[in-house]
Amino acid sequence: MELQSAQSDEVLAKIERSRQARRHKFYLRDEHVTLSHGSGGKATHNLIEGIFAPAFANTVLDRMEDAASLTLGGLRLAFTTDSYVVNPLFFAGGDIGQLAVHGTINDLAMAGADPLYLSVSMILEEGFPIDVLRRIVDSMARAAREAGVLIVTGDTKVVQRGKADGIFINTAGVGTIRAVAELGQTQVRVGDRILLSGAIGDHGVAIMLAREELDIETDVQSDSAPLHTLVATLLDNVGNSIHCFRDPTRGGIATSLNEIALSSELSIALDEQAIPVHAGVRGACEILGLDPLTIANEGKLLAMVAPEAEQLALKVMRAHPLGKEAMVIGTVQADPPGMVFLRTDIGGTRVLDMLVGDPLPRIC
Amino acid sequence: MELQSAQSDEVLAKIERSRQARRHKFYLRDEHVTLSHGSGGKATHNLIEGIFAPAFANTVLDRMEDAASLTLGGLRLAFTTDSYVVNPLFFAGGDIGQLAVHGTINDLAMAGADPLYLSVSMILEEGFPIDVLRRIVDSMARAAREAGVLIVTGDTKVVQRGKADGIFINTAGVGTIRAVAELGQTQVRVGDRILLSGAIGDHGVAIMLAREELDIETDVQSDSAPLHTLVATLLDNVGNSIHCFRDPTRGGIATSLNEIALSSELSIALDEQAIPVHAGVRGACEILGLDPLTIANEGKLLAMVAPEAEQLALKVMRAHPLGKEAMVIGTVQADPPGMVFLRTDIGGTRVLDMLVGDPLPRIC
Repeated sequence: MELQSAQSDEVLAKIERSRQARRHKFYLRDEHVTLSHGSGGKATHNLIEGIFAPAFANTVLDRMEDAASLTLGGLRLAFTTDSYVVNPLFFAGGDIGQLAVHGTINDLAMAGADPLYLSVSMILEEGFPIDVLRRIVDSMARAAREAGVLIVTGDTKVVQRGKADGIFINTAGVGTIRAVAELGQTQVRVGDRILLSGAIGDHGVAIMLAREELDIETDVQSDSAPLHTLVATLLDNVGNSIHCFRDPTRGGIATSLNEIALSSELSIALDEQAIPVHAGVRGACEILGLDPLTIANEGKLLAMVAPEAEQLALKVMRAHPLGKEAMVIGTVQADPPGMVFLRTDIGGTRVLDMLVGDPLPRIC
Repeated sequence: MELQSAQSDEVLAKIERSRQARRHKFYLRDEHVTLSHGSGGKATHNLIEGIFAPAFANTVLDRMEDAASLTLGGLRLAFTTDSYVVNPLFFAGGDIGQLAVHGTINDLAMAGADPLYLSVSMILEEGFPIDVLRRIVDSMARAAREAGVLIVTGDTKVVQRGKADGIFINTAGVGTIRAVAELGQTQVRVGDRILLSGAIGDHGVAIMLAREELDIETDVQSDSAPLHTLVATLLDNVGNSIHCFRDPTRGGIATSLNEIALSSELSIALDEQAIPVHAGVRGACEILGLDPLTIANEGKLLAMVAPEAEQLALKVMRAHPLGKEAMVIGTVQADPPGMVFLRTDIGGTRVLDMLVGDPLPRIC
């Protein structure tokens, strides 16, 4: 049985170059873990490139996608994992259980896969109320049922009071890859249009508002949703023209697009006016001094699409319930490689970096 | 794509009966999570049958094996997950990182699978030393390399100081099933011999001794080891005669054998004199009032083998480095169903229950 994903020499060379670029850009200087290491932004990359990537290196992991793409006995599989530590456990539009199902479904979908099977592993704190656990488990079961995936294996651990924070949930997932063309950050090309499936920042702002210390009145709800049917319809209609999917979770679209620019060795130009942001999110961000571009989403995707397919892809997205607010938000350029630029509302241009620090820890 | 494992009507009926038997035996009365819910013993089963099993029910999960067996596009896959919260992080014979690799490899192996790919998801506590993280990651990488598996995808979360206990690690795993005959608890038959691959209790006692509060001098080391090559050689040599594998981790062999008795609706008779226990483990258990039969192992397996293959299976086990101390420790009988009996050293017989309570929390 082969232990590597089938990849052309050209793709392997590109993965190796992007690996080296990341190693130069990210360097771990810290002596202790900080909350920023969990932000999904720059500090997380420092940790990954400083410790995990060199220790575990192999050509599947080195691609640094949200899910691993594997070829096993002629079958193309996606495999992914995520742990969920969101605080609070319940928030407008969702809860930790639903999020744990949707998040892993979405990581599989971003690899062009149909999600099929999930595992669930819980770490519980002694004293956690059984009725709250039951609500969370029922929410997971409902989310799995609605998305058509099966929870097939699990594990439960308990730690002493004060050694965890109520409940942490890990889900891993397996799916079969529907995409015919190879997808991924290294497949992105000059001229590609960047499509965003809807308004940004809803999830992060909903979590922030659910924290007791804040008292802002808005109707913002988490966008937590399973994106696999949106991906499937895009693949079925414009599959050969799609080069990369990405769901901009921790670190927001600023971080996801910087990762794509870095791995593809290309430049991304964004049009700020084209990026949809709901009024409640915009208002909360202004009050709190946050940038919606760096805030987490849990039901949005970015698609990098060949220019000739832009309009068809946009039409397909908008015809799907989760893509009604889809927009073309930017273009991929050759130079300068590894950078993201934002044409601002007032006509200027600024460099858009990935998230630095962590304004909103434990968002997922 | 089919979303169920291929199973005969007879097996499905047996799974359904054992599901109902468990539902009658286990009932969740607690209002809060206790450490016993993480023991792997009776309270864990109460939690699983009271909450997880009814919510997530499907014919793959209902088998209640350590790994799910899936059929995907003609390929037979095993899929499993485990979170590791062991305390302390380093102990004689291993550490949390190595354990997280071996444990998930072993769950795949018990399904008769060759482990191929692992995911790694970490929950880190703010302030955790980077050099300790590096040691743990290096230990995981070494364990994976030595076992011939690839770590292909991962995730990192960070929670505030005081909201976790240093580091928790989840690994999920995927492998291809080598076994030709169907394996599992419902495959166990009257007359089957019970083989144990070596001495019990080493891991649990090593953890206990690593806790600072105890001051007992012994040379006990954790038995943490990857069992997949032992499983592969057994399958290659006596595959058609093996009905079930089980690695007796949390709850020890007492718990694993009770689970098998319950799921198979058969009775198990054990011979206490035949069960190997190292002197250091026996001594520590006597001092601490613990029963080695309920103590966790991380590098031992139970194999339920047709009687005519008993001697060949034993020979194959003993020829493998991890099976040198293998013994035949008991026999499967028809009556009374769901019970385990121990013929004691002094000639009596007693009922052996699964672990009740949790004398050693956070053993893995």
